[in-house]
Parts: sequence; C-alpha cells; structure tokens
Amino acid sequence: MSASDVGVVVTDPPRADEASVKELARFGVATVHEAQRRTGLLAPRLRPIYSGARIAGTAVTVSVPPGDNWMIHVAVEQCRAGDVLVVAPTTRSEAGYFGELLATSLVARGVLGLVIDAGCRDVAELTDLGFPVWSRCVSAFGTVKESLGSVNTPITCAGQLVRPGDAIVADDDGVVVVPLADVPDVASAAAAREDKEARTRTRYRSGELGLDVAGMRERLRDKGLRYIEATEDKR
Amino acid sequence: MSASDVGVVVTDPPRADEASVKELARFGVATVHEAQRRTGLLAPRLRPIYSGARIAGTAVTVSVPPGDNWMIHVAVEQCRAGDVLVVAPTTRSEAGYFGELLATSLVARGVLGLVIDAGCRDVAELTDLGFPVWSRCVSAFGTVKESLGSVNTPITCAGQLVRPGDAIVADDDGVVVVPLADVPDVASAAAAREDKEARTRTRYRSGELGLDVAGMRERLRDKGLRYIEATEDKR
Amino acid sequence: MSASDVGVVVTDPPRADEASVKELARFGVATVHEAQRRTGLLAPRLRPIYSGARIAGTAVTVSVPPGDNWMIHVAVEQCRAGDVLVVAPTTRSEAGYFGELLATSLVARGVLGLVIDAGCRDVAELTDLGFPVWSRCVSAFGTVKESLGSVNTPITCAGQLVRPGDAIVADDDGVVVVPLADVPDVASAAAAREDKEARTRTRYRSGELGLDVAGMRERLRDKGLRYIEATEDKR
Amino acid sequence: MSASDVGVVVTDPPRADEASVKELARFGVATVHEAQRRTGLLAPRLRPIYSGARIAGTAVTVSVPPGDNWMIHVAVEQCRAGDVLVVAPTTRSEAGYFGELLATSLVARGVLGLVIDAGCRDVAELTDLGFPVWSRCVSAFGTVKESLGSVNTPITCAGQLVRPGDAIVADDDGVVVVPLADVPDVASAAAAREDKEARTRTRYRSGELGLDVAGMRERLRDKGLRYIEATEDKR
Amino acid sequence: MSASDVGVVVTDPPRADEASVKELARFGVATVHEAQRRTGLLAPRLRPIYSGARIAGTAVTVSVPPGDNWMIHVAVEQCRAGDVLVVAPTTRSEAGYFGELLATSLVARGVLGLVIDAGCRDVAELTDLGFPVWSRCVSAFGTVKESLGSVNTPITCAGQLVRPGDAIVADDDGVVVVPLADVPDVASAAAAREDKEARTRTRYRSGELGLDVAGMRERLRDKGLRYIEATEDKR
Amino acid sequence: MSASDVGVVVTDPPRADEASVKELARFGVATVHEAQRRTGLLAPRLRPIYSGARIAGTAVTVSVPPGDNWMIHVAVEQCRAGDVLVVAPTTRSEAGYFGELLATSLVARGVLGLVIDAGCRDVAELTDLGFPVWSRCVSAFGTVKESLGSVNTPITCAGQLVRPGDAIVADDDGVVVVPLADVPDVASAAAAREDKEARTRTRYRSGELGLDVAGMRERLRDKGLRYIEATEDKR
Repeated sequence: MSASDVGVVVTDPPRADEASVKELARFGVATVHEAQRRTGLLAPRLRPIYSGARIAGTAVTVSVPPGDNWMIHVAVEQCRAGDVLVVAPTTRSEAGYFGELLATSLVARGVLGLVIDAGCRDVAELTDLGFPVWSRCVSAFGTVKESLGSVNTPITCAGQLVRPGDAIVADDDGVVVVPLADVPDVASAAAAREDKEARTRTRYRSGELGLDVAGMRERLRDKGLRYIEATEDKR
Repeated sequence: MSASDVGVVVTDPPRADEASVKELARFGVATVHEAQRRTGLLAPRLRPIYSGARIAGTAVTVSVPPGDNWMIHVAVEQCRAGDVLVVAPTTRSEAGYFGELLATSLVARGVLGLVIDAGCRDVAELTDLGFPVWSRCVSAFGTVKESLGSVNTPITCAGQLVRPGDAIVADDDGVVVVPLADVPDVASAAAAREDKEARTRTRYRSGELGLDVAGMRERLRDKGLRYIEATEDKR
Repeated sequence: MSASDVGVVVTDPPRADEASVKELARFGVATVHEAQRRTGLLAPRLRPIYSGARIAGTAVTVSVPPGDNWMIHVAVEQCRAGDVLVVAPTTRSEAGYFGELLATSLVARGVLGLVIDAGCRDVAELTDLGFPVWSRCVSAFGTVKESLGSVNTPITCAGQLVRPGDAIVADDDGVVVVPLADVPDVASAAAAREDKEARTRTRYRSGELGLDVAGMRERLRDKGLRYIEATEDKR
Repeated sequence: MSASDVGVVVTDPPRADEASVKELARFGVATVHEAQRRTGLLAPRLRPIYSGARIAGTAVTVSVPPGDNWMIHVAVEQCRAGDVLVVAPTTRSEAGYFGELLATSLVARGVLGLVIDAGCRDVAELTDLGFPVWSRCVSAFGTVKESLGSVNTPITCAGQLVRPGDAIVADDDGVVVVPLADVPDVASAAAAREDKEARTRTRYRSGELGLDVAGMRERLRDKGLRYIEATEDKR
Repeated sequence: MSASDVGVVVTDPPRADEASVKELARFGVATVHEAQRRTGLLAPRLRPIYSGARIAGTAVTVSVPPGDNWMIHVAVEQCRAGDVLVVAPTTRSEAGYFGELLATSLVARGVLGLVIDAGCRDVAELTDLGFPVWSRCVSAFGTVKESLGSVNTPITCAGQLVRPGDAIVADDDGVVVVPLADVPDVASAAAAREDKEARTRTRYRSGELGLDVAGMRERLRDKGLRYIEATEDKR
Repeated sequence: MSASDVGVVVTDPPRADEASVKELARFGVATVHEAQRRTGLLAPRLRPIYSGARIAGTAVTVSVPPGDNWMIHVAVEQCRAGDVLVVAPTTRSEAGYFGELLATSLVARGVLGLVIDAGCRDVAELTDLGFPVWSRCVSAFGTVKESLGSVNTPITCAGQLVRPGDAIVADDDGVVVVPLADVPDVASAAAAREDKEARTRTRYRSGELGLDVAGMRERLRDKGLRYIEATEDKR
C-alpha cells in the first residue's frame, strides 16, 4: 500500500475468469504452486482454523491498520459470490480482526473464505458455520474502528503480492495466489501435473522407486554419490 | 512473584462469586474480553490441546521455577471443585510440567482445567480424560522437584496479572482473566453484548451490511474514504 | 554431518533389536524419555500432522541441503519394513520436502512414518493414507533436486543426535530417540515405570494426594515452605 | 514474483528522480514513513549489521530462490551509482547470500547498500568496507548457484511491495520504500514534518508538555480520562 | 490492567525510598535479581538500544492499547526526576511508540530511561541524547492517538508485574523490578552478595576452582558423578 | 547425550592438532564452513556478545540440564589453554548459565571463549574482560546447581554434533565446528579458498563482474535467463 492508497476503495475490479478459477479448485495448493513454477505461496505461518477445507476464489484485498478492522466492514460491500477476502495489516498485529458476525455477513454474499495475516476469533462458531479462515493466529483480542486503510488495491499478504481479482487457492497445506492473467495457463499446467502424478503414484504403489521412475541414478553418480557398506565403527 | 513470595502457599483465598462465574461460562472468551473493555486476555501463544472445550472457574495460581513442577503437587491440595489451575514459570520454559497423573488427581477434586504458560504432555491421555489444558506448547520434556515457588500469590501468566480467586474463562479462542471483584459486572455486560450481537446476526444473515447496521458511512466519509472505479491500469 | 559425509549412502546399517523396539511401541514418548533419564527428546517444534498416531521403529537417517529433497528419494531404497525415516536439513528450511507421492513409496516398503525438521505438504492426503509425519511446519513450498546430502550417517535432528538404526518413538507428545544399544534396557525401565504409574493413578483417582503418595511433605518443609492463611489485603 | 517472471532480467528501469531521492537522505526512516502516511515500512526483523549508516537510493530488485544467490551476481550488472540492492527469497531462508566479495563488486559500481530479507555474512569485513547491509540475520551458511530468479521485477521484501526504481531509505531504525512516483511529494512532506518537529523539540526542551503543545487535554477528557489520587491500598 | 483501570491516571503514587534505589544503581541487574531470590526479571526479549547504560529508578507505569501511544504523553506529566517510564501494550505490538521528541520531554524532567515491551524508534538520536531505552524491537512504525489506557496502575511488562513506585534496575543484561517495599532489603542483600563475589573472584583469578572454592566435590560424588578416561572409541 | 552419559566426565580426550587449529584462526567462519563443503555451521541464533572477536580452539563439551549450570563448574577443571567451552542444555533454556566469575576462572586457565546455546549474563563485565561469548540470548536469569549432566561426551549444540577435541572457529559471522580428524585438510582447503578469493577481490575491485570472472553467462542462458528492456507499464 503506498501513501496515495490510504483511504481508497476500488470498486468492481476485474476478476480472474470464473471457469478457470473453478478448475483450480480441483487441485491442491501444492500442485498449483508447482504448476506456476514455485511462485505465489503465502508464508506457512498462515494456518487453517479447521482441517479439510479447500477453496478457490477471486481476491478482494483489504489493507488494514494494526488493531483496526474498520476496513473489513467496508470490504464486505465489495464482495460477491465466489470471492475470497484477503486481509493484511500494515504492520505485524496479532489482534482478532474477524469473527462470527462478519462471517455471517460474508456467507450471506456467497464469499468462500478469509485469508488474513493477523488473528481471527470465534473459531468454534466459524467451524460450525463452515466458513474457513487461514490466519496467522487465533486471538480474541478486540480491534477498534478508527483509521482508514484500503480495499481492492495491491497488497502484500504473508510475503506475497496479491492484487484484487487474482485467484486464491487455500487448503490444509496453506494458501497460494495466482495472478489474474495467469489463471488459465496455471490451471492447464496443474491438470497436466496431476495426470503425471497419477501415473507415478501407481508405479510407486507397486514398489517401483523414484530413483528408477525418474531416472535419477546416473545424475546422482555423476554428482559423486557413493554407496558404502555399514561397519560397526562407522556408526 | 516478589522475593518475599518464594516458598509461600496462601490457603483458602476468597473466590469470585460462584453464580456469576457460572454465568460467564455461557459466553465465549471473545465476548467476556470485550465486555471488560478489551482487558484481561492472555497471550495467544496459549492454545488448547484439543478443540471444543469451554470452561469458567476460579483461579488457583502457581508460580514455578523453570523446569520444576514440584509446586503443582503442592497446589493440588489447595484446589476445590470449580477451580482452574493457572501456572506460570518464572522464566520461559518449554518443559512438560503436567501430564495425565496430575490431571487424574485434579479431576478427583472437581478441577475444571489447566492454564499453563509452559509445556504439557500426555495430550492423548488428557484428551481421553476430557481434561482441557491451554498451554504454550506440547512437550514431553521432564521436570524435576527441587525448588520452591508459590501457590495462590498474584502471578503473571502469558502477560496478564492473575490473582487467586479471579475468574478464568477459556475456550478455543484462548484464555481471559476477570478480576474477582469485576465478575458480576462483567457477566451482566457480556449478557447485554450477546443480546445485541444476536440482533445484529439476524440482520447480517438477511444481507444487511455492517456499514448500515452500525451507521458507519458518514464517519468513513468524514475521515476521507474515497470510492474509485477500477480501471485496467489501476491494478 | 561432517565434510567427508557429503555424498555418502551407508547401506544396511545395524538396526536396534526388533522385539525390543516393538515393546517401546507400547509406551508413549513421555514414558520412554523418562525411562532413559530425560535424554533423547527432539525439540517440541516437531508436531504430528494429525492426532492419534503412535509409532516405534528404527531410524534411516537423511541429511539434506536446504530446499533440496533429492536425498529422500535415495533414502527410500535403503528403507525396509519397521523403519522410520528421519530427515534433517543442514540449515533451517521451511520448504515442503515431503508429500503424498513419497509417502506412497514408503508405505509400499512398510515404513512406519517420517520425522523431519522442515516442512511437509499434502497433509490431507497423508492423513487419508494414514502415514504419520512429525514436522517443523506444514509448507507447500517446493524443493529442487540439485545437491547431494547423505543417508545413514549420524545426523542432528531437532537438537538430538540420531544414528542409523537407533529406535525412534513418536506420538502426540513429540519424538524421542533411543540409541541402538540402549533399547532393551530402556524398554525394561519404561515397563517398570508404567507399572509404578498405574499404581499411582489408582491412588490419585481415589483422592489421595501426590504430597502423600510420594511423601513430599517433609522435604518441602525442610526447604522452607510456609502455609499462610489468606487475608483480604494479601490479594 | 509471478510464474512468468522467473528467469527475467528487466534492464534499465526508470528510477525515482535523483534530486528528490537525495533530499530523502536528509530525513530518517521514521520521518519518511510518517510523511507518506505510515506506509512502506519493511518489517523490523531487518536490522543493520552496524550502527550509524543512513542511505537513500533507488531500488534494483532481486527475487532469489531459497539458498541460491546466483541472481545477485546477475543483478550486479544492472546496478549503477546511487542504487540500493533489494533482495527477497521466494520462501523464508536464513542462508548467507551475501558477503565481502559481492560488496566489493557493488562498491566498484557506486551502489549505496543492500537490503535483504535473508542472511548476510562477512560482517566484520563489510563493516571495515563501510558497505551497509540491512538483513534478517547474520549467517555464514553458504548458497548455491543452481536456479533462476528475477531482477528488476516487482518483489515483496519483508512484507512490502518494492518495484525497481522505487526509493529506499534505510538507517538504524529500519528500511522504508517510497514508490517512484511519490518521491517528490514525500520529500516535501518530510521537510514540512521536520520543521514542525524542530519547533516542538524546542518547546519540549524548555519543559512544555505534549499535552499542552498539541492541545490534547480536552479530547482526553471527552474520552473519559480520570485522574485519581494515589492511596496506599490502590497499589 | 483490569476493566476498571482503563482511562485512569493515578497521581503521585508512593515511590521506593530514593537512597535505597540509588544503592541499587551500584549493582548490576544480575546481582539484584539474585539478591531477591531470582524473582522480578523481565523477559530477555527486552534489549538496550545501545551498550553501556546502567540505571536504577522508580517506575511510572503506562498501559497502552496496541499501536497507540497517546497515554505516554499523559504519563510524561506524572514523571519526576529519578523515575523510569515502564510501558506495556495490552496485546503484542511492534509499533514504534517512542522516539526522540518524547525523550526530549522526559530528559527535561530528569527521567532516567524507558522500558517498553514494544518498539522504539529514532535510536540514533536517542543514543546521541544519552537517553537509554530497553525495548522489544526497533521499529519506525508510527502510532495513533485514539484510545485510552492507564498511568500508574499495576501492569504486566515482559512477564513481570510492575507497580508504580517499584524500583527498576536496567543494564546490558536486561531489566529487573524490585517491589517498593523490598528495596532496602534487596539493596543490603545485593551488597552482601557483591562482597562475597569479590572474594571468589580473587580466588578464581589465582587459579582456584569453583569445585573447591564452593566445596562441590562431595555432593557431586553423592549424586553419582563418574570420571572416565578418554579412549579412542569413546568419541 | 544418551542415557548412559548422564553423570559422566570424560577426562583428557584427544584434541585436534594444535598447529592446524591455529591455522584455522587465520580464516573466518564463512571460509572454514565453505572449505568443509558447507557443513558444521551452528545455527545463526548464536550471536557474539560483542563485535570483533575471532577465535579458534578445541572443544570441551558440556551437556547441562535446563536452568542448571553445575556441570560448567565441573567442566572448568577439564579445560586447558587453547580450549573453547561448548555448552548445550538438554532442552531449550534461556537462563543465564554463565557470567563474569566463571569467565575469570576460565581466563586463568587460558580458555579462549564460550559457545552456549542458552543465555549468558554480565555482558558488560565480559566485554571489559575481553572474554568472547557466543550465546542464544543475554539473560540475567539465575541457574541452580542440583542435577548432573556430562562433560566431554558428544553433544548437539545449536543443531550441530560437537565432540570433545573438535575444532571450534567463531567470529562475528557465527560458529563452525570442524571434526578433529578433518582439521588439517580443512585448514589447507581454507587457505586455497582464501588465495582464490584474493584474486577475485582484485578483479571485482577493478570493476570486473562475477558473471565474467566466474564465466556464468552461458550457463544462465542455458537455464533460460532472458533480458527484457523496461517499459513504463512493465512496472
């Protein structure tokens, strides 16, 4: 967020193509991250509040001051079905910016989940509600409504640049962002990767080794790998 | 713990009013914390060892040396039904101070749970037993029984002052302490807050926005909030 | 790992006695750790990706460069039924070294689980597969296959020295290593400890106090423990 | 860094206006950060390797794989006098990416310093050389030269978006980025702020209070601030 | 800070005896901490912004909301010569609450230094001014002036209870609090300890061992210490 | 430390060759670490208490219980001129195990410095004394003398295996261990590396690029590196 973005709400930004985003939902975070050349993964400090959720949607971005959740209320109005709210404080905060009331409001609009590099509360209620949240921590500490931030401007969340309309995929492995323009290509690459992994899985299940399936032995030998028989004093 | 408190056990301290403490049990940590003006929340590093527990009881406080759990055995005798044990080491420790045997002893006395700013072990057994623990970490590292601490003196646990007899509320969102004398007022304030939230929840569910329910639009405009239509190059 | 170990695979190292290792599986990590005089516990930052697993097996050790999982593929071939893979990067890394494909390969060989002082991914799939992993974090960040490490040389994992063939016990409380030669003695000591704890548990359940069961009162008094009745101004 | 940026070097990007950047050098990080409405501050985990340096220059950005410093060598060629190198790994890394040899090369080109969200080594030599570095940690751990990253594409460094050519100001208080287009305005705002602070400083030195200088008393009273005389039992 | 303390300033609280506090200034933090039976040490995350300062004074306590330094301005008025300002946020914050302007104001009143479990900025200027600060981090991130806290009520700072008027000793080893009433006794105990250490130092300098000076050999043998000659295969 | 090592002191272990160790002292930690193929570096959390020291000596190893420094007194007797004391607690501890009195005793025996994965205190006095310490933190928190550990058995310190008699090199960049048997080879390799770096430094100083000096351009092109001219909308 640059100085000129403070206090700005960008309305109706372009979103990644809905059909392609839905395709991404078939794949996990790990596959999508690999499919876009190991880019876009948010820091692993973001963890889901409950296991088993997997979502893919389009980002509505929110930049919030530390300990102040006012802009999340502003952002709700900018959300539509299929969106994922992505929230980043301008400096480290472990306050509980988000709870069951805001989730109720987002569910009413068809929002799929929340990604926040700060705290979240009411986790028992959010779990009952089936509204998934990926957060830095669980924290009941309350926030104020005093200062402006921004909605739908580019933000940095957990170490990654997220722009409004980018695709967000999140599951038990974490959260990955796919730039709006790359979504169709990444979806194709993920599908190709998944096909290849299915074949490898079958071979591994039958006892074949990665050394052979992927033909690694020669390159390992060239790098100098040596096999030595164990002896008692080698331990 | 001040120097003169080392080696002291205070017996039978006054406890917060039982009826009011029971009322607190109806509300979550987040609500109680808000009801007492955002005070009393222990640091979010304390996490429950399993999900779904919610307790409210009166604190028996224990100050322990690093890596030494002797005083917890001393504290057991000071506990009665409805109490919550609150344990803080005098310096950071990740040892496993508490396990299934001590829990068995506390269950026999009607103690509701444990809050400890250090490690806990036997988490599988504690889960089976249904004895909830909020701890800094899970750690099997053993402790010794060599040095004295104190029981039922004021302690600092995870950043908050806890005095014996204060009310402790703990759930999936964390742990909050309510000073003994404030318990009835906080219970009333929490009930009022819950009523208000129920009304808000209904309105949110039907699609109303916080911006309108809480009348935020004017104040946001006064602070300078601007709405800008998205353009391609704004991304 | 010393300089001369880089690029080395030690084949068929001696393993701890199978019968004794199986006995260890009856006890939890906490009991085994106590039974060997509070040694061998890996740092509590290693956490299971799902609750409820308990394993005991023999270590196949892997030293890996940061962000490079090539040697894990090399290690798979060195594993046999009853082994546990133990992986440590040479410097701190939060990359996701391990996922469902490698697990499929290990399951096919009868490997019991993985201990890794780095990241792991595909946690939903690993949970479905019933392959337990104790890791530093969950991270989808991908790794490369560029540099050599070592297999079955002594490594330091989460602060403990692990040699190939040592026994590894892991459960919800963490991970403990038992040196190969100590396994039978530790198994006996753990059994003796468990028997004693069973008797203590029965007494605690009936309301007896640790102070009396373990005869602590006299030593506490000698150390200077004082009991003081609470007064209003003592709070 | 998005997928399409891996392996890209953007040559000769526009830089922030040199005269304005030089003006920024007169002010500290704290003042510049305030002057752009509290935006742009990199996370405080970045610390200078020695005290007393203050620089302001234009960013050459580098995205590097974990544990791989190859792209820094590529970036050197893109640097010119007055630049500051800004390096971010794609996932958390504590390797020592940068040392005295690379610094020698940068000094030869007139580069002012380095900002890196990873490790740096040779700190004694860098101090002697007078080449300032702000890093996440000091670490001698070596890096490899195996994988591509990018140079002069937008990156996220310590939680902030940095684009090539943006102004970077760094001193003992940390590091702040000023977007290229905002530099002249921020320089003016910083100058105005500094003037105002000079007047305040004079008044504070003579014993006047902020309460009076900034006229806070009335607003504090409106918020409900109460003054209570101390009594013995109030402690 | 309990709910009823929010918005309260306690004026003119009793302070620890000036002569005794001055005596404490002769001793380091380590000695004072030992002299009061290893109690009162603030968490080691508080570090001095420059080396070589040692102060002892009386606490003026400030509880501040996260990211809001308004109450520090309120607190300045409550300070007098010989005081030390002790500031704790109600939840974790890494904002830069304090800088050179506030220090100028405190210096004008004879305040000796600042202890803050949050961020501090302008460290170059504070060093030039000779105003020592012990802080959680250095951070230029700005704060707001929107919400009330309290001044001169009991607070928890870096894990220790600090009451207004308690003695604070701080040096390169950290910060220790001595409860008001204990100051004379702790000063005497520290003096006695220092005398004993001086005698020990002389003996150590001449080559005597702690094993003999403190007569540890017998107790070590009783605990079971064994000496074993090194053999090649013992390594 | 395995169970059978608790309570053991190994006397007079073999030490790395004195002449070779002295040679290592010429090189920094970074060079030695590279010279032994990037192995042996202790975790970067170990930092020197003051800048500018560089030592190389032979390890006397100490395994200590958490918060108990008794074994350090036992270890002093096992030290001789040219040794470096290396101390690791069996579980994480931030207590202040070591201060000026123990340093006085070690200086009297010609010990070069201390490496400890825990806290150290009296840093002002240690600095005056010129006795360098690399520690996890500075902490005045006192320790007890109650439980046994071991001296001169293999230990894990900050993630690396250290055996008695191994060479330890420490400077502003951290700490590296060189296995006893590898010392002469590592010293030669370090000398060769330093010579090569000297030649590179000269070329860098004159403006040559690493891209050319190390002939990287072709391999970068083969990996797919592309140069793109900046355009306004590329930012």
